[in-house]
Amino acid sequence: MRALVFDAYGTLFDVLSVTSLCELLFPGSGTSLAVMWRSKQLQYSLLRSMMERYADFWQITQDALVYATRALQLDLTAEKRVQLMDAYRTLHAFPDVQPGLRQLRSMGLGLAILSNGEPRMLESATRSAGIADLLDCVISVDDVKVFKPSPRVYGLAAARLSVPVGDIGFVSSNGWDVAGATAAGLTAFWIQRSASEPPEELGYKAAYVVHAITDLPAHI
Amino acid sequence: MRALVFDAYGTLFDVLSVTSLCELLFPGSGTSLAVMWRSKQLQYSLLRSMMERYADFWQITQDALVYATRALQLDLTAEKRVQLMDAYRTLHAFPDVQPGLRQLRSMGLGLAILSNGEPRMLESATRSAGIADLLDCVISVDDVKVFKPSPRVYGLAAARLSVPVGDIGFVSSNGWDVAGATAAGLTAFWIQRSASEPPEELGYKAAYVVHAITDLPAHI
Repeated sequence: MRALVFDAYGTLFDVLSVTSLCELLFPGSGTSLAVMWRSKQLQYSLLRSMMERYADFWQITQDALVYATRALQLDLTAEKRVQLMDAYRTLHAFPDVQPGLRQLRSMGLGLAILSNGEPRMLESATRSAGIADLLDCVISVDDVKVFKPSPRVYGLAAARLSVPVGDIGFVSSNGWDVAGATAAGLTAFWIQRSASEPPEELGYKAAYVVHAITDLPAHI
Repeated sequence: MRALVFDAYGTLFDVLSVTSLCELLFPGSGTSLAVMWRSKQLQYSLLRSMMERYADFWQITQDALVYATRALQLDLTAEKRVQLMDAYRTLHAFPDVQPGLRQLRSMGLGLAILSNGEPRMLESATRSAGIADLLDCVISVDDVKVFKPSPRVYGLAAARLSVPVGDIGFVSSNGWDVAGATAAGLTAFWIQRSASEPPEELGYKAAYVVHAITDLPAHI
């Protein structure tokens, strides 16, 4: 294995770290808003890809926020929208991310992000999480204008890193992302961040199941 | 408008009519199982399409049931699995379906189904709902091996009916299906079955919003 490629949202960055701001702006609805916002964001990435009507992840994240507040009958003022979208640029990294990436880097592996995120969102998030210096490159699906789990996205990682897919380890906490990468020929590590979460029934299982990024060195 | 094409699951057939059987088999978890089963079924149709690893809707429906029971920590025995899958062949039709289709047929319109469903599932469901005789044809995505909202699916309806997309009215209760059909050039009617459900933020709005199939004749 010559390179490890990481999913960003949910894997490195805690998408539910917006929950406290959601709760502050909409008391009593913080968790339901944060959860629906994330699930709608993922659904829109799939639907837009299927419709062949790509819009970047920043746009989709905003569209998902609008839908979620309407569905929950919350009044999303322009000011609250800006505050919530800004929070998405500076999501918290999980505590295992920085130490895990340092260990892997000291082993001489190439490290990269492969994400649905729009390039400027990813740049802010990696900088704010203090991991920008630990990565060789940050690859966005925006280059191919289709979201995961299209095989074109995983192929993009191999092309950008100039490493054959078979020599790339792909790391994601999203079970469907693991299935997509495996179907595209990558060796996938599933970070099972919640012990009660079952694997997806999509016909392609992770090569390894771990619980934190700091568990990875032992498997490489 | 020369033909009306209907989505099946959620539009003609009540996918939540399996709730009572779910509750009987898993007391206290009927609603959460029925809701998660449906949402996972839709997600798997999108993910399988994106991965370019089509499996038919029967398979996907079963995979979604397995995932949902594991996520809810319910013990899905082989017997319970068969009972629940059988229920999907004989979903209840909404009460407006039969009278609505009769009215539309008497107006001389061509009537068809365009569904993610696997052909035999659709055949059982239309027969059991007593609407098979009211339809000119039942079109399954299985012919193109990709799910909605791919434009290839909506194009299939035009090809099979030999009617240009611009002369087809498409009817769905699923907001994302309305967006997909509209993006593909069809005139879409959104049946808003729940008054609190907002439209999807996908950039393509329904031409008409109605609340039942019996509302359609007034718009044609």
